[in-house]
Amino acid sequence: MKKVAISIGDLNGVGIELALKSHDTISNIVDPIYCIDDQMLKQASQILNLKVPPNFKTIDNFANSFTIEPGVVSENSGKYSFESFMSAVSMARDSVVDAVCTMPIHKKAWELASIKYKGHTDSLRDIFKQDAIMMLGCEKLYVALFTEHIPLKDVSNTITTPKLIKFLNDFYKTHKPKSQVAVLGLNPHSGDNGVLGNEEQYIVEAIQNVNNSIGTEVFIGPIVPDIAFTPNFRKNFNTMIAMYHDQGLSPLKALYFDESINVSLNLPIIRTSVDHGTAFDIAYKKKNLNTLSYINAIKYIVNQEKN
Amino acid sequence: MKKVAISIGDLNGVGIELALKSHDTISNIVDPIYCIDDQMLKQASQILNLKVPPNFKTIDNFANSFTIEPGVVSENSGKYSFESFMSAVSMARDSVVDAVCTMPIHKKAWELASIKYKGHTDSLRDIFKQDAIMMLGCEKLYVALFTEHIPLKDVSNTITTPKLIKFLNDFYKTHKPKSQVAVLGLNPHSGDNGVLGNEEQYIVEAIQNVNNSIGTEVFIGPIVPDIAFTPNFRKNFNTMIAMYHDQGLSPLKALYFDESINVSLNLPIIRTSVDHGTAFDIAYKKKNLNTLSYINAIKYIVNQEKN
Repeated sequence: MKKVAISIGDLNGVGIELALKSHDTISNIVDPIYCIDDQMLKQASQILNLKVPPNFKTIDNFANSFTIEPGVVSENSGKYSFESFMSAVSMARDSVVDAVCTMPIHKKAWELASIKYKGHTDSLRDIFKQDAIMMLGCEKLYVALFTEHIPLKDVSNTITTPKLIKFLNDFYKTHKPKSQVAVLGLNPHSGDNGVLGNEEQYIVEAIQNVNNSIGTEVFIGPIVPDIAFTPNFRKNFNTMIAMYHDQGLSPLKALYFDESINVSLNLPIIRTSVDHGTAFDIAYKKKNLNTLSYINAIKYIVNQEKN
Repeated sequence: MKKVAISIGDLNGVGIELALKSHDTISNIVDPIYCIDDQMLKQASQILNLKVPPNFKTIDNFANSFTIEPGVVSENSGKYSFESFMSAVSMARDSVVDAVCTMPIHKKAWELASIKYKGHTDSLRDIFKQDAIMMLGCEKLYVALFTEHIPLKDVSNTITTPKLIKFLNDFYKTHKPKSQVAVLGLNPHSGDNGVLGNEEQYIVEAIQNVNNSIGTEVFIGPIVPDIAFTPNFRKNFNTMIAMYHDQGLSPLKALYFDESINVSLNLPIIRTSVDHGTAFDIAYKKKNLNTLSYINAIKYIVNQEKN
């Protein structure tokens, strides 16, 4: 059974509740190690009024404990969530575990704790000095993002043939798609032959280049963006490359929000995550949490071949 | 019963088949007048091997007849579809009918026929000298587009407070929303307080201005674009304003492609349309056509109050 380090996320949010409630399910398929110390675990489980399962493995002495304040953005909680993540990443890098699964952190809390990164993917890029690729989705539909957290007006300038070639090659090598992958155009109607924008020419060039070097038509496109997610098109494609954040994530979340996960490709470690946030509004309120995204994030790890 | 002029669309495409097959259904709720002449109707019905219903009202002498070539982009067919549309619009303008419903035309065929417009909405803007608003969707979800057929890189520059104020006011007056309307942000995470773009400030200003002048909080936003279409958000909102074409239409078509329609708001006439194209690949092939979009386009007219 694969060992998975669970970075516990912001302890003022829903991560620890998800971990406690899903432990019986996930420990049937992986051997989880939770990056939380016993003192913080005890505190959280008491507020939640949940028993800690006997085989709930934790780690100690990696960060300063603090008082949990459900739903509050805090420096202490931000710092703890960062240290938990760093511990998980270290274990994966040192092959103590096979993969990392991350619970949601709060970006503002990281900022308050003077963490220099905007989020998980951003820090993984810096730690491993590699262009991590962000892919979200579920088995029915995965969407990888060519650009992510940049203003919409800057997207056009980032679309160049060399950058796209590198991205498609990295994606192909690390996702190892089993069927054809749809590459979306940038403009409405994919530019309508240049009338509504011409960045599609770079997309065409990159697809041809990469398909030629692979030796088969792995990538197809540019696909008209508002056609790519229609039921008919999705019958034949379950993997898409989006040119920008909302082009991919709005339709994905419209269709499969509850079951989607976040995967970092093109890194020396395997890392998955839930695709939702800290959900401060319902943290520690004994609400019915949806554990599907978390369980799918673990299942993805189970299904990965070892390199 | 309302009188509706049906502009017949590109006769090399699926429009006439939709009209013939749906006539019994729609003539129960409206009185349709088809903008096709008897000679062309006879030709189409013979290729389709469909009987023309006895009360299928046509009009004559508005365009030159030609030989139908299923699935072919042609100048003759482009010209005929334009004349059919012009006849329908004239009837609506002269109050001979209460509304126009348009079957799909082929933009390239219009170009071959030297029609100076890119499509229906474009020509309606010119004919009525008004900023027609394009809205697509169905009762579960309507999406109006602040910008439409422009390159993605030009979207940012069109977002100004005065333009948004005019758009929201026009939308409010002509769509008469019965519940709150969600106005989407432009950037990922609606700009994350300016870190990922700052056009959201104009959206905020415009919403405040228009809500103040209406006297109630009709418009809410900016809503984070990839959250707006999640099932939870849609529980409370069935009408959205998208800043650009694919922001609105990709999620809409992912969810409700078959049943959606296209409505032109902010015009002196009522005009609806199917939301699909000419479907040249299946025209006259006796396939099972989905008539839902067309029937919904007619139902929308039935449900409109007269001004």
